Order: sequence, then structure tokens, then C-alpha cells
Amino acid sequence: AYKIHLCACVCGRKPPEVRKDSPFTEKFFTQTLDHFNFNSFGNGTFCQRYLISDKFWQNGSGPVFFYTGNEGDISDFALNSGFILELAEQQGALVIFAEHRYYGASLPFGKDSFSRPLVGLLTVEQALADYAVMITELKQQLQADNCPVIVFGGSYGGMLSVYMRLKYPNIVTGALAASAPILSTAGVGDPRQFFRDVTADYEAVSPQCSAAVRAAFQQLQDLAARQEYRRIQSAFALCQPPSAPRDIHQLNGLLRNAFTFMAMLDYPYSTHFMGNMPAHPVKMGCDIMLRGPDLLANLRDTAAIVYNSSTPLSCFDLYNLYVECADPTGCGLGPNSLAWDYQACTEVELCFESNNVTDMFPPMSFSQADRRRYCSERWGVTPRPGWLRLQFWGDALSSASNIIFSNGDLDPWANGGVRRSLSSSLIAINIPEGAHHLDLRGANDEDPESVVRARKQEAELIAGWIQAERNRQKH
Amino acid sequence: AYKIHLCACVCGRKPPEVRKDSPFTEKFFTQTLDHFNFNSFGNGTFCQRYLISDKFWQNGSGPVFFYTGNEGDISDFALNSGFILELAEQQGALVIFAEHRYYGASLPFGKDSFSRPLVGLLTVEQALADYAVMITELKQQLQADNCPVIVFGGSYGGMLSVYMRLKYPNIVTGALAASAPILSTAGVGDPRQFFRDVTADYEAVSPQCSAAVRAAFQQLQDLAARQEYRRIQSAFALCQPPSAPRDIHQLNGLLRNAFTFMAMLDYPYSTHFMGNMPAHPVKMGCDIMLRGPDLLANLRDTAAIVYNSSTPLSCFDLYNLYVECADPTGCGLGPNSLAWDYQACTEVELCFESNNVTDMFPPMSFSQADRRRYCSERWGVTPRPGWLRLQFWGDALSSASNIIFSNGDLDPWANGGVRRSLSSSLIAINIPEGAHHLDLRGANDEDPESVVRARKQEAELIAGWIQAERNRQKH
Repeated sequence: AYKIHLCACVCGRKPPEVRKDSPFTEKFFTQTLDHFNFNSFGNGTFCQRYLISDKFWQNGSGPVFFYTGNEGDISDFALNSGFILELAEQQGALVIFAEHRYYGASLPFGKDSFSRPLVGLLTVEQALADYAVMITELKQQLQADNCPVIVFGGSYGGMLSVYMRLKYPNIVTGALAASAPILSTAGVGDPRQFFRDVTADYEAVSPQCSAAVRAAFQQLQDLAARQEYRRIQSAFALCQPPSAPRDIHQLNGLLRNAFTFMAMLDYPYSTHFMGNMPAHPVKMGCDIMLRGPDLLANLRDTAAIVYNSSTPLSCFDLYNLYVECADPTGCGLGPNSLAWDYQACTEVELCFESNNVTDMFPPMSFSQADRRRYCSERWGVTPRPGWLRLQFWGDALSSASNIIFSNGDLDPWANGGVRRSLSSSLIAINIPEGAHHLDLRGANDEDPESVVRARKQEAELIAGWIQAERNRQKH
Repeated sequence: AYKIHLCACVCGRKPPEVRKDSPFTEKFFTQTLDHFNFNSFGNGTFCQRYLISDKFWQNGSGPVFFYTGNEGDISDFALNSGFILELAEQQGALVIFAEHRYYGASLPFGKDSFSRPLVGLLTVEQALADYAVMITELKQQLQADNCPVIVFGGSYGGMLSVYMRLKYPNIVTGALAASAPILSTAGVGDPRQFFRDVTADYEAVSPQCSAAVRAAFQQLQDLAARQEYRRIQSAFALCQPPSAPRDIHQLNGLLRNAFTFMAMLDYPYSTHFMGNMPAHPVKMGCDIMLRGPDLLANLRDTAAIVYNSSTPLSCFDLYNLYVECADPTGCGLGPNSLAWDYQACTEVELCFESNNVTDMFPPMSFSQADRRRYCSERWGVTPRPGWLRLQFWGDALSSASNIIFSNGDLDPWANGGVRRSLSSSLIAINIPEGAHHLDLRGANDEDPESVVRARKQEAELIAGWIQAERNRQKH
């Protein structure tokens, strides 16, 4: 709804509320374009969006809860992170949700943002510097100089909240990093882990379920090997028949992606976070997979849980519903997906593979060589494997402090993160019944006991950090 | 002696030794041009110089001592930091002195390096990333993966070694930051501190000394007010007579700079670090200042300790011996001074003033407004006051560890640094008889007891860090 221009007047004007009943006000911050080069864009700025709520703030003394926005529209994260507001009410906090540059309404160069070389200002370091500058200036504006700041984030946003505490502990007292795969995205660990853990979710519902998925994919590969493309079109209700191995590869990717999404978003109630998702989608998918003998129909109907969830489609368009990119777990669609693809092509390493041995999917690899080739063609960039690990410490976290690494056991991202406490102030909280950052969501009647307990522990740890910071300030 | 090209072959060729009797070998590292933008120079690299000595290294197991090069030719720092080699001999360390980008032979774009926008890749963050990448890759090459790394640096190099430990503790186990003014250069503290402390050095020799300096400057101002420019020319042996207030301002700057240098480099024996300097130059300057009744001649002859030290000059050239820049303590001359001026115009804040009240010099201010004006004209950049403090924590160091902040009480930079220990692993070591990073110099018969003690304490702390790191690795 907002056209962003490079002018202070737009940043300055008071925008309307996000929603009538929202506790948040939408604002824009005049942000430095390039923190790391004084000669590239000179003193240029752009308008960075943030949502702010002082509804619960103990004015000038309560803490600041700052969500380090990730790869999407910031209002989506605000709407799906109710725990932060609930905690703000308990602890008298000011709440800010900051939008990541190049996402949502925070496009530094409007519709030209993804052209070269303008896209080059999209880096993790720039995003962190944005948040550091924004926190510092807003605290001054709001006369909140002595208010401890806690950062929150989910997924990549959780990675950013960890990085804020690592790189800017002068600004940030502690971080709650929910489902932050800081290891797997830095190339630490096994590239097979992700799709193995997706598979495990279906296997946990029943071994028959994952076996059915595996058998269905096998039928598809057999048809493809015989080039029975019409059969495949009708079985999967495709708008166009496939005509080449490339189309089969695309179909495999689209199907695998549906299982990935259901595993990540396997919440105990229906959600509207990344598209619409019914309650317990993995269970629902398994019910469909085991419904009858037509495995291909079952596979199609399971994928339809994801692709048919918003508007019922008369047919599936292979290349519109799913776009292959530098993230084998999916980049999504639209402008935000461009930005994420670029990040996966530069700093964030997502060379995950399925191989049909440690997982139930067709073999689909994405090696560093594949990544280099794709990223060079798509964006003209060369990824730098090892850079994220070097820059943000990988698993060498012993000198860090005041970070909660929460993870849900249902989440395929979980084992790419920190699963064991590393010290008395680097705390791992594991949530057996949790999917992707369930703990950040607001309380719900369907919440399993484990997430209720996790949120309680998180609240206590955060209150403790704030108290310790206040004690430190007194001395 | 080296022409630097953007090609791997030059980086790859084995260059000759620095000196026949030097323990160091000179090498070049193929370094990423822009760590923070994947689209600006693509995958471009430049040749970064470093000096390496494995003379004392316990191969593959001894620690790595890494000097984070600062604003000059790296061989100058290697030649004037003998303590690091002495400590390497004690502790079986590999020694690396890395040259800072845009200095010495490490010009990313050769002689075009200081044109716009190419100079934009000169930032503290790029320099730190250079060191982080270089350490990581050289450790792999040298099969030194488990060898703890200690960083060393003096002055701005000491700031960089602090920053390395703050931002890359995954790579760096500890830092010895000698005479690192991390507070004053980040805008924390009193802009009058520096020249007040220069003055205090002369006052400490005798109150008559600083009074004589003050009176001599007053005579100069009186002559200038009466426009007796010929008198001034002959009194100061200037090549050209001054002809305008601007020339008097320049003369004041040149003279103040001589006193600054002698205070910084007030070592107990003669040195050849930043030019040639006799032993105890402050004492020598005071002897000259109090030699006879002709105060202007005394002032001239005191300044000559600095300006006449290399080749005896028949006259002083006002604009060639000293160049005003964004650093009121002096940028030096030549290409390195360009790079430092640019850094003082962007991140490093050096808005120090003399005022003739808290110091003995003529009033010469350099406000943020002056800085903004100068830097915009000179480099087309706008400084960002507060950025260095935000980025590198200023005095908010409570979450840091394993840093020694050493300072000499004679050094006017000292009170711009950390003078009191902040914790059991953030140790301030004060050296009453020390000038600018005397402790980094090799042992000398003239060393005061206080620096001998300081080096011993530094050696013990560093050995302790290395031992602790080895213990941590075992678990």
C-alpha cells in the first residue's frame, strides 16, 4: 500500500495503522543505504518500515523487545509472533518489529531494487547494521536510553537475533532465537539432515506413511522413465503435460516442497502464516497418503493441502506454483522470494540434498558447484562458502552469552541449530511437540504442554537478563 | 619495490626477503576486494602483503601471533615491535605481520586506489574481514587448525586487535592492544584531552618548559597580529614568508605537531619509527626551550628535532613538512597519509582541539562541523559520528574478554584508551614511564623497569589464554 521513495518526507509522514484492531503503528525510519562504504551511495538513505507498540510499555523504563525481521513482509511476522506481545504485557516492554531491507515495503530502490548492482546492498551485515542504528536512534528519540533491549526472531530472523547479540552486545542484552538454523546455513553439519528430518516427521505418524510417499514418488519416476507424460499430467492435474526430464525435475521439486512446508508448519491448529495450513498437516497428509491404492492420486491430494489451500485450482501450474531457486527448501513466490534467492546465492548456504536413501524423496542434490553455477547465471554473483561461518562464528560460540536457542522437534530446521545448552547463558530449549518457531506464536488452547513450558522458561530467562542488566547499570 | 596487479600470478610469486638478516619472509595473500557487497567488484581480489616468520614456531602446534597492521608500511611495524618476536621465541609461536589494505604495498587498485569511488573499500570493517579471512586460510594452508591465535597491535593497530577479539572471537583467542585509543577515536571523552596530555608531558619536565612554549607561541601570535611576516620567516627559517592568516595557522599546526610527535615518541633511547627521534625527545625539547631568551629561536630549534631529523634542511617549507588533514594529531606525508586522512574522514573520529587554556598551544579547534566541511570537500564523504562507537562498542565492553589494554603514561593517546581493568580478563596495564606502545618494542638496556614488568605480565596473561584455549579444545 506504500510507495517508497528516497525522500525524507515519505519517511517522515505518519502512516495509517496496520489494522484497526492492531496494537501496532506502522512507521518508517530513514536508514543509511550503505553502512560499509562511504563512497558508494554517499549519504543516501531509504525508508525502512517498522511496526511499533507502546501499549504495554512502562514509559522510559520498561525493556525494548525488538523483532529482527526476516525474509518477508514484517506484518506477517508481527501477526504470527503473539508471544512477544504477551511477554511485553507481562514485562512492560516496548515492542518493535523491524522489516528487513529488500523485503516487504522496505525496498531501498523501489522496483529497481533487484537489478544489478543495486541488489548488492542486500547482505546480512547491512541488515544487522540497520537494526543496530535503528535501535540506537529510536531509543534516543523515545528517551529509552537505559532500557535493556532484547531481540527476538524466528528462523532466519532468529539467526539475525543471534548475530545481533554476537556482534552488537553493546546494544542488545539478550536474544531469543526461535528455530534458528545457525549451523546448517553456515555449512556446518550434514547436507542430508534437512530432508531426512522432513521424512522422519511422516515416519513418526506411521512407517506406512513414509513408505507410501516413497512408493508414490517411485511410480512417478517409473512413468517418467517411460515418458508417459499424459498419464503424469492427468494423475497430477497439471495444466500442461510435462515434456522433458526438466519438467519431471520441477514436479519432483514442487511435490517435495509440499511435504517440507507441512513438516515445518505442523502446528496443532490451523494457521495463516506462509499460506493457509490446516491443523496437524503432517497427520492429514499421511491420512491422504494411506487413503486408497491410487498412490499418485494420494500424492497429488497431499500436495494440494499446500497448493490448493488459498484458492481452489482447476489444475496445477508446474512453474507458477513453485519456483526453483538457491534454497532447496523453497524461496516462495513474489518479490520477497527474489531477495531470499539472492541471499541464498551469496551468504546463506543451503546446499541440502535429498537422495532417496536417508529420506523418502527422489534424489535431488544441490552441491556447492550447482549453487555456484546457478548463482552466477541468475545474479552474476559467486557464493563464498565458509563466509557465514567465519563472520558469525558457526559453532564456535563459547565466548557468547545471553542467547536462547529454541527448537521444535517436529521442525526439519531444528537439527541445523543449537540443540544442547553450551553454558549457563547459552540455553537450548527443545520442544518435543513443536514445529517451526511455535513458541513465538501466541498462546492457543491447542498448544502442547511442552511449548507452554518453553515459553515460561523463556520468559524467566529474559526477565533475568533484564534484571542483571539493570543491576550492572547501577554499578 | 613491488608493483601490485590484480592477478593471482603476482600474489603467487615468491617475493624476496625483506632484509637479509630478517626473520621474516614477505608474501602476498589473494584477498577479497569487497567482503560486504557481492555485486560491486564481483569476485575481485587484490594482493595483500604480509610478513611471516616460522623461526620459533613449534610446527603445527605452537600459537599464532598475528599483528593487525595499521596505517603504514607493515615492515615499519615489524621492525618496531620486537617484543612480539621475543615472545614468539618464549612461546614457540608462528608470527605474522599483516599489512592493512590501502597502506604500504597493499594498494587494491595501485596508484588509482585513492580515486573515487575506489577508495570506498577502505574501511575498518573491510580491514578486519581481511584479517579474519587471512588467518583462517593461512591456518588451513599451514596445517595450524588447532593453534590458538593471539592478535597484537599498537595505536590504531591496537584498536584493530581489540575489534578482532570483539567481532571474531571464533578466530582470535585474545588481544594485546598497546596504546589503543578506542574511546577517544569513538567520540567518547573530552576533545581537549589529547593536547592537554601533550602539554602535561612538557609540564612534567618542568613547569618553566610548558610556560616557555606558551610564551613562544604568544610571541608568534603577536607578530602575526601585526603582520610582521618577514620577522616570522626569519625567526622560523621558513622557505617562504607567510602572507596571510592561513599561513600562520599552518605554522601553528606544524609546530604543535612537533610537540605531539616528541610526546608520543618519548622513548628512553633513539628510535627510527616515525622518522628519526633522539632519546628522551621531550626532555631535549625542554632543554632547548629553556636555552636562552630568544623564545622564537628556541621554538624553531625544538621543532627541528622532528623536522630536521632525517636530512638537515636549509629552510622549513610550511606546506611540505606538515599537511593539515582530518587528524589534528597529524596524518604524516605520502600515500599512507592519504589513506589515514580518508579513515579520519569516515569512521575514525579525531575531533581534538587545543585552546590555550587546558593546553599550551594556540587555540585550534576541529569540530564535527569542521570535519564535515573538510571531508566533504576533500573526499566527497560525510562522516558518521557515533558509527565507530555503535559498531565497536565504545565503552560498553562488559561482554568482551581476553583483551589487554596497555598504555604508557607519557603517551597523549593513553587517556583515550582503557585505563582501568574492567574484569578479570579485560586487563589494563599502565606503564608510568612508557610512551606510545613502548611495550611492543624489543627489550633495550634503557628500558624503564615499568615496561619490563608490563611485558612480563603480558607474556603471562597471553600464555594463560593459550593454555585455557587448549584446555577448552580438549573437552
